[in-house]
Amino acid sequence: MVAEHTVKAFDEDITRLRGLVAEMGGLAELSVTEAMDALVNGNEELAASVITRDKRIDQLEAEVDRLAIRVLALRAPMADDLREVITALKIAGVIERIGDYAKNIAKRVGHIEGRKRFEPLTLLPAMNELAADMVHDVLTAFAARDPSAAAEIVQRDAKVDAFYDSVFRNFVSYMVENPATISSVAQLMFVARNIERIGDQATNIAEMVYYAATGLNLPEREDVPAPKV
Amino acid sequence: MVAEHTVKAFDEDITRLRGLVAEMGGLAELSVTEAMDALVNGNEELAASVITRDKRIDQLEAEVDRLAIRVLALRAPMADDLREVITALKIAGVIERIGDYAKNIAKRVGHIEGRKRFEPLTLLPAMNELAADMVHDVLTAFAARDPSAAAEIVQRDAKVDAFYDSVFRNFVSYMVENPATISSVAQLMFVARNIERIGDQATNIAEMVYYAATGLNLPEREDVPAPKV
Repeated sequence: MVAEHTVKAFDEDITRLRGLVAEMGGLAELSVTEAMDALVNGNEELAASVITRDKRIDQLEAEVDRLAIRVLALRAPMADDLREVITALKIAGVIERIGDYAKNIAKRVGHIEGRKRFEPLTLLPAMNELAADMVHDVLTAFAARDPSAAAEIVQRDAKVDAFYDSVFRNFVSYMVENPATISSVAQLMFVARNIERIGDQATNIAEMVYYAATGLNLPEREDVPAPKV
Repeated sequence: MVAEHTVKAFDEDITRLRGLVAEMGGLAELSVTEAMDALVNGNEELAASVITRDKRIDQLEAEVDRLAIRVLALRAPMADDLREVITALKIAGVIERIGDYAKNIAKRVGHIEGRKRFEPLTLLPAMNELAADMVHDVLTAFAARDPSAAAEIVQRDAKVDAFYDSVFRNFVSYMVENPATISSVAQLMFVARNIERIGDQATNIAEMVYYAATGLNLPEREDVPAPKV
């Protein structure tokens, strides 16, 4: 009976831990989408709410850390269960980074001229959607403990990287032709870079989901070269 | 005798774990310094060795993860000891990010025109030195478990951020006046941003060192605003 009680308590802890990670992930995904909406529409109120939400994501990460440490201390889980706790801890750290990137994008709102009619800005929503979809799908793969979905998401990162290279070249040409817009386009370059990093972090989570589900590592990805300009 | 044996084995594991983290940190610090040397001197061979070293840093992180999991599984440490293991795991993750930023800087070598005589490039070594010193000193604070040194390092991040804002404004002015150099200066903007992030990560480690040594969190830092240009 004691053993059964302990197993049940552990399962409850794990469910709570996974719930916190899913909550963090949902907030980060929302921030990725809303940060781009705020940028495209020059909506400073929406940008402010993305920035505020990042504090909540940070608090949730601290909660994941505390709970993981408590589970490790009280239940001393073994093998698969231990891997599950450590993976939740690590995924929470990566989601926190995604929240940071979204916050960084939101902070650019108010520093870009022209808004919707500003040509370089029109390139970014489609790139952001690729990255946001990766974040969405990797959270689904995490919830479903689905290693084949995770492996598929890793493949998509190359598309985001190719998009980034193309955007970077385009921005440089635009600045050369429109020197008056340089400071705005420079801000958008950082936005593009943040989106590219969101894709990277979704990929990192996918690798962790794969590992947690199978105990195996995916074959290493090729490094992305710096854009050739 | 059994208890004593267990304590000794745990101490050996912790020493090994801290040694791996220190080794990672030393490599990352070297990469931060060498990446800037490679950039300033257009030394592609040195840049390549920074890029190669990053793989070693990643391997060491995987080793830290494995050892931490083994210690948690075999020794089920409590309280301070558990905090120590989790902190080592988290610091290893942050050092891996610093290695990535240095690698990103190294990848820009070969994409910058003019080298030493290129005016925007001359702004970066002093900024990099501030960040590299933070990395060096936080590793010393980690090795010495020194919370007051850690708290001092957190204060220094504001200098790196102020440097970054000034560099960013300077780069934009330079691009406006020298449109032919836009693509090179855009590369250097990313370098400046990577240096700023290295300072942030050194600060994150300092906070973790403080927490591991005291069980307390440092008061939260103010967020850094986006550069006003």
